[in-house]
Amino acid sequence: MAERSEELVDGVLRKATSEVGLDVEYVRAEGNTLFARGRDGSEVPVSDYLGGFGALLLGHNHPDLVAGLVDRLRRGAPVLTQLSLAPQANEVVDTLNRVLRREFGVDEPYFGVFANSGAEGVEVAVKHAELDRALRAAELLAEVDANADAALAAPGAEVDASALGLPAGTPVAEVVALLRERNAATLADPPRLVALEGGFHGKLMGSGQLTHNPDYRLPFTPLGARALFAPADADGLRAVLEGARATVHDLRVTADRIEVVPRDAPVFCALLLEPVQGEGGIVPLPAEFAKRVQELSAEFGCPVVVDEIQSGAGRTGAFFAASQLGLLGDYVVLSKSLGGGLAKLSVTLVRASRYRAEFEMLHSSTFGKDGLSTSVAAAVLDLLEADGGALYRVVAERGERLGAALRAVRDDHPDVIADVRGLGLLRGVEFADLSTSGSALAADLQAQGRFGFLASGYLLHEHRVRLFPTGSAPSTLRLQPSVQVTDEEIDRLATGLRALCALLRDGDDAGLTAFAGARAF
Amino acid sequence: MAERSEELVDGVLRKATSEVGLDVEYVRAEGNTLFARGRDGSEVPVSDYLGGFGALLLGHNHPDLVAGLVDRLRRGAPVLTQLSLAPQANEVVDTLNRVLRREFGVDEPYFGVFANSGAEGVEVAVKHAELDRALRAAELLAEVDANADAALAAPGAEVDASALGLPAGTPVAEVVALLRERNAATLADPPRLVALEGGFHGKLMGSGQLTHNPDYRLPFTPLGARALFAPADADGLRAVLEGARATVHDLRVTADRIEVVPRDAPVFCALLLEPVQGEGGIVPLPAEFAKRVQELSAEFGCPVVVDEIQSGAGRTGAFFAASQLGLLGDYVVLSKSLGGGLAKLSVTLVRASRYRAEFEMLHSSTFGKDGLSTSVAAAVLDLLEADGGALYRVVAERGERLGAALRAVRDDHPDVIADVRGLGLLRGVEFADLSTSGSALAADLQAQGRFGFLASGYLLHEHRVRLFPTGSAPSTLRLQPSVQVTDEEIDRLATGLRALCALLRDGDDAGLTAFAGARAF
Repeated sequence: MAERSEELVDGVLRKATSEVGLDVEYVRAEGNTLFARGRDGSEVPVSDYLGGFGALLLGHNHPDLVAGLVDRLRRGAPVLTQLSLAPQANEVVDTLNRVLRREFGVDEPYFGVFANSGAEGVEVAVKHAELDRALRAAELLAEVDANADAALAAPGAEVDASALGLPAGTPVAEVVALLRERNAATLADPPRLVALEGGFHGKLMGSGQLTHNPDYRLPFTPLGARALFAPADADGLRAVLEGARATVHDLRVTADRIEVVPRDAPVFCALLLEPVQGEGGIVPLPAEFAKRVQELSAEFGCPVVVDEIQSGAGRTGAFFAASQLGLLGDYVVLSKSLGGGLAKLSVTLVRASRYRAEFEMLHSSTFGKDGLSTSVAAAVLDLLEADGGALYRVVAERGERLGAALRAVRDDHPDVIADVRGLGLLRGVEFADLSTSGSALAADLQAQGRFGFLASGYLLHEHRVRLFPTGSAPSTLRLQPSVQVTDEEIDRLATGLRALCALLRDGDDAGLTAFAGARAF
Repeated sequence: MAERSEELVDGVLRKATSEVGLDVEYVRAEGNTLFARGRDGSEVPVSDYLGGFGALLLGHNHPDLVAGLVDRLRRGAPVLTQLSLAPQANEVVDTLNRVLRREFGVDEPYFGVFANSGAEGVEVAVKHAELDRALRAAELLAEVDANADAALAAPGAEVDASALGLPAGTPVAEVVALLRERNAATLADPPRLVALEGGFHGKLMGSGQLTHNPDYRLPFTPLGARALFAPADADGLRAVLEGARATVHDLRVTADRIEVVPRDAPVFCALLLEPVQGEGGIVPLPAEFAKRVQELSAEFGCPVVVDEIQSGAGRTGAFFAASQLGLLGDYVVLSKSLGGGLAKLSVTLVRASRYRAEFEMLHSSTFGKDGLSTSVAAAVLDLLEADGGALYRVVAERGERLGAALRAVRDDHPDVIADVRGLGLLRGVEFADLSTSGSALAADLQAQGRFGFLASGYLLHEHRVRLFPTGSAPSTLRLQPSVQVTDEEIDRLATGLRALCALLRDGDDAGLTAFAGARAF
């Protein structure tokens, strides 16, 4: 073979990351610590602020989750038993409903649909929303049809079809025919999918089109339905919804009068948003905007899909980050940390008043709802909900400590750190424009969107802190440590960032890259 | 809450399956046996011919896989360490390359891309194929552009633009402008995705449009790119490809002559097929057709995606079912049994000559390539490849034994069993038209597409055999036992099927449904 073995899996990505020292093998993991294979054979502990792209709120290999999983394996618990009872799945959804009631004060139950990744969970939500939309459209057309039949059976009535632009005296049969034709044409248009600028909802053929980053989206646009992207402000979103709305025509029929009346066409499939945009650069949804979303959703008949894949399952100090914003979705998608860093699953919650049981016959997954991942998720929920939610308070406290440390670094280095943002244990550090910094190297790499990776390599090897920039905001470092992150680790991160800032300010490019020639792991 | 807990997860589906006795809880699983919770508290062993929809070739909780997983968990091996080295993933792809070389005699290596489910694996293949197609189109346009520049720099040359329908004497600048405009328009058309009638490739927003069953596909058609469906015969496929092909125009430029020449436009994204259609009713690809696929692929420039999600990883007596047909794909998708019934993963293999490293920057997955699933897959491959592939021979032998037993039942009951089909441990039993059978109940349920589920309930409770019809061929039972299936289990299945045939022939509807009133589990 021409290619060497290590080139056959993400070989180019590996080469790129190895240039900044990220070609590390981790051999053990515990809590917030990853142990790298040292060049001298030792284990080198590294503080994990990447946290499995947000899946490790409970840390690596949480002892209770590991014990539960080992116990399952030991007693031969079934994993794949499709089309039989799945009590763990029911337990997960029951618990999620209890949490929904507590955090949102909502009485209405939510149904749960299981899949295998966050992106699959988003696709479940959108598929369900589209089924619901089509059924709503069919229901509306049936109502219109019944009214049309009534109109045709009232030939003596006065007809006002001005809403269709038809003159007085147009025969009712002609009005009905035109109205049916126009309605059918309106409802044959593609469904409207709306997402926010900067949003990220996965990279599958469909979900990838809901992800704003044009690099990820545009090469694959021919494979999925196009989304409309709105800014995260109420006026901007309203403008997008207004621009996309459509009207069908109904008939109001009485004994002596038939009037054509406009009605909103159910063209909106879903509005997708994250309570805190993760990939987009750790950008919390503005609180004022979040308050208006449900109002706009109701006004335009557009269901809201709240993507809590990264922000949910405790990450921000509540189970649902959206509960801190008062934003209740028609759909809520959970994944990442719900699998406890061990199992892969997603749960898409669907508000009962939106739920269509037909969906159960149309959608399924071989691996979805398996015994292993649902039992891990049930154990994760036990840990989160134990002791009256003590863990959420720890997350909030650790998050505050982390946030304060980052703000202090920014205050001391406003020339290098432009912003620190975030909620709970989901934090972002945005570098300033480094083009006028002392470092020619940093300026050059930043212009190529690669500075964040050099910073990652520096912090990893010089300070034993593992983190990365986000893919869509390459000058923003994403910090998602586990709840076990210690004061010492936070101080070490702050020390590392300060040292990085000083190197950048002093233009000490040799200091910035010295790690590459002296790697311990 | 209005809804009861058990209604919140697939509640309607649960109700429907409980009507035919499928509302069973399995509490333990080992090899080919599932243990149901008996009503008297005992464990009731059931022979599992459903096999996790094909994921359990190695059986439930294979002791070596369980031991390996427990060991990993015990020593705190990392699960999620994105953007670091992933030696298990490399090991999996190395082994798959060794198997490819052995089974297909191919020297060219295949790259591996990891994801979390079969459907995701299909989406990876199609996304990659679309990136490749777009890059091929850009490369072609760049060639044409270079030729156009050369043509514009040769003003004295004779111009033959008859291929564009332009008269002799048309100025070269005009020819080039029209040619560029036409080429751009041709390449702006949607990419052509071709799949086979009866095929199944998943149910995500994109992959769902490649699945033929209109029930699964049509409600969601607005969410993904439409596919063209071809029959599994060479003439039929050729006709579909012919109907979808398109032409761009290039220029052949010499010092004294410029000629417009047609070239095939790279409009074909992918042709998807399964070596044995699973959901479609256990239909092996006709061998004569399989032989022609690569020829047609080359002729039309349409890459072939071989979906081995169900048929691969040993299921048919070779690692790749397609190797038994001599059909080498440009892409091969593996999942299901590769996860050993414990882990969720897919691997999409991409032929090196097609591979685009750019893809590594455009596609990723939080859970993909995790340490847990890749190490389980590596252990699965060890088991399959041990002792010179002894396990494949056992699969073939067990498959023959099963096939012979099924054929014997069919031969004795040709009025009830229309066909038995399949390869290795992937077998289908198709019921005849039961409308004239003695059983009014069976005739009625078959007309509703529900007879297979009644048969499943009967066989489960009366004969302790668990199996189901496929979703898209509701009168075909799908049999996918594990390699541990015993002679006794095969005999019991045959006995159960014979008893079912007798009940149907005798119109003994009371006997057919007696189990519902006397359930032990």
